Amino acid sequence: MQKIKDTIKKITPLDKALMQKAQTRLDNLTKPQGSLGRLEELAKNIVGITRQEMPKTKNKVVFTFAADHGVTDEGVSLFPKEVTAQMVYNFLNNGAGINVLARHAGARVAVADLGVASDLKTKGKKLYIKKIGYGTKNMVNGAAMTRGEAIKSIEAGIEIFEAEFKKGINIACTGEMGIGNTTAASAITAVCTGTPAAKITGRGTGLDDKALLKKIAVIKTAIKINKPNKNDALDVLAKVGGFEIGGLAGVILAAAAHKVPVVVDGFISASAALIAYGLEPKTKDYMIASHTSVECGHKVIWDYLGLIPLLNLNLRLGEGTGAALCLPIIEASIKIMGEMATFAHANVSKKI
Amino acid sequence: MQKIKDTIKKITPLDKALMQKAQTRLDNLTKPQGSLGRLEELAKNIVGITRQEMPKTKNKVVFTFAADHGVTDEGVSLFPKEVTAQMVYNFLNNGAGINVLARHAGARVAVADLGVASDLKTKGKKLYIKKIGYGTKNMVNGAAMTRGEAIKSIEAGIEIFEAEFKKGINIACTGEMGIGNTTAASAITAVCTGTPAAKITGRGTGLDDKALLKKIAVIKTAIKINKPNKNDALDVLAKVGGFEIGGLAGVILAAAAHKVPVVVDGFISASAALIAYGLEPKTKDYMIASHTSVECGHKVIWDYLGLIPLLNLNLRLGEGTGAALCLPIIEASIKIMGEMATFAHANVSKKI
Repeated sequence: MQKIKDTIKKITPLDKALMQKAQTRLDNLTKPQGSLGRLEELAKNIVGITRQEMPKTKNKVVFTFAADHGVTDEGVSLFPKEVTAQMVYNFLNNGAGINVLARHAGARVAVADLGVASDLKTKGKKLYIKKIGYGTKNMVNGAAMTRGEAIKSIEAGIEIFEAEFKKGINIACTGEMGIGNTTAASAITAVCTGTPAAKITGRGTGLDDKALLKKIAVIKTAIKINKPNKNDALDVLAKVGGFEIGGLAGVILAAAAHKVPVVVDGFISASAALIAYGLEPKTKDYMIASHTSVECGHKVIWDYLGLIPLLNLNLRLGEGTGAALCLPIIEASIKIMGEMATFAHANVSKKI
Repeated sequence: MQKIKDTIKKITPLDKALMQKAQTRLDNLTKPQGSLGRLEELAKNIVGITRQEMPKTKNKVVFTFAADHGVTDEGVSLFPKEVTAQMVYNFLNNGAGINVLARHAGARVAVADLGVASDLKTKGKKLYIKKIGYGTKNMVNGAAMTRGEAIKSIEAGIEIFEAEFKKGINIACTGEMGIGNTTAASAITAVCTGTPAAKITGRGTGLDDKALLKKIAVIKTAIKINKPNKNDALDVLAKVGGFEIGGLAGVILAAAAHKVPVVVDGFISASAALIAYGLEPKTKDYMIASHTSVECGHKVIWDYLGLIPLLNLNLRLGEGTGAALCLPIIEASIKIMGEMATFAHANVSKKI
């Protein structure tokens, strides 16, 4: 727990004075004031987060964490549990969606096993092995993990972030893989935002109507049996969460502590953001909401946190794909601030 | 008129068989089917447009056309008319928003004078000079241009596209600059979509409430006096349009004729899309709607055309900036199709 406490202690509010300076700079560029809309907001926020007048964007890292979920015993996913491990190998072999999109964005992918149900053979490829367990327990029968495991999963995320931070990180992205993890994300969202399960539960990889009803019932049962305390994020994570979700909450805490903007990916990543926010609300100012996915609970989380996502492309893959797609837009916002001519320099008349 | 007719003759429906092939390929990639949402649609459409199973994206061109508008005499813009010419110089000196965003996306910018009110000095820099006139006439007193000028403006756009096409174009973007041109775009939108002026007129570069009401009144007067025929796109362009808008309609026609996807930028570009669509409805299938701007008429056009924009970032700059921001997303869609592993190749289990 000490590592979590120490990390939280380092999280401070954004630098408002520097943000004001960025605003003045943006207002002097050759365009009607505010006409680049959210691009201008992004640039200003990243100045406030990084405390750099001209933030660097060179080192971009997607943290893609994998773990298994005991609740798959309830038939909440279309894909067999083995796919979690198979997809980790796909990540290591650069064949998955996130590999393609991270490469496109000039980002590296840090893949970690936070609790896959089998022992993975890395064959010399870089995989962070921070296994908290061989998958969580089935949450309909009791807590998914112990409170101690919840703490360990968050601390593992902090450790992975800090290992990568030594190599340089200007922008972080979250991402995940875990068959069954939309069920955990839905349960966390229901508890933390106080929304009925039916309103935040989606079809995951493609459930039909009947299976969707079953999934909702499973989530309701898990909440009823475990009674997670919404005011205690560790309790929520332990009772209905997942190891990869805890890990990503750790990444978000560590990013904020190190003054790094963190692009939060899909529904599961956003549920990790709820845990991080529950532990330290100031983390919210360090988050960039990437996109609104097909999973209906995703928008509920953004609304709860008061964040407006950059994209709405009907994605529902996870892995960090939506976050990676935002990277060129985020970099564009910084380049606008740094590379556009001012009215004075370009000899362009201001308003009448 | 012959050039327009010849161009339209070359526009054919998309290749549905190749699109089906692209869908099959996408469905075999290691992700739940359809989970990359609009990225998958984009990739499939671009296959259908280009007739290439693996479309190239190397050569990207933003067509940024400038012209002046006589209607500025009515006080419909916050900025003086001279800014049109000043911004063209800014484009040529690489200091404008579109220069930064095009460079970021690896695109070149083709700048053209379709009717700026002064003679521009290029000082050896590449500017297409295709001046149809020194600005349009004030549309509240009669037609903005003659029918012959409307035809010439479209043909100029076709010629510029074809000159650039010789250097290679895989994806085209539209963009514009012209003080007063949201007034022309609003008038075109009101006529072509049959929407009251008040519902499609916005604040342009930042009008206050009083000036906005004046602008709406100007548009109503222009439509009342000129009686543009909504079933005759050339008539609409001539009576309430602009030279740069005609030029961009020409770019869209030429892109479709040459099987090149064309990313339509902001409100003014979208009004050019209405003209191109009026001349040949099949052009719609070649368009990619970039973003929804702050200008309220923009969404009305997308709805009328049945296109869903990729971004919603509260932009209102024009120049091609919103289109350029879409380029990394469009390229990502093609890379997904080409670089992701299949289920069989990655040894990942399919659905249960």
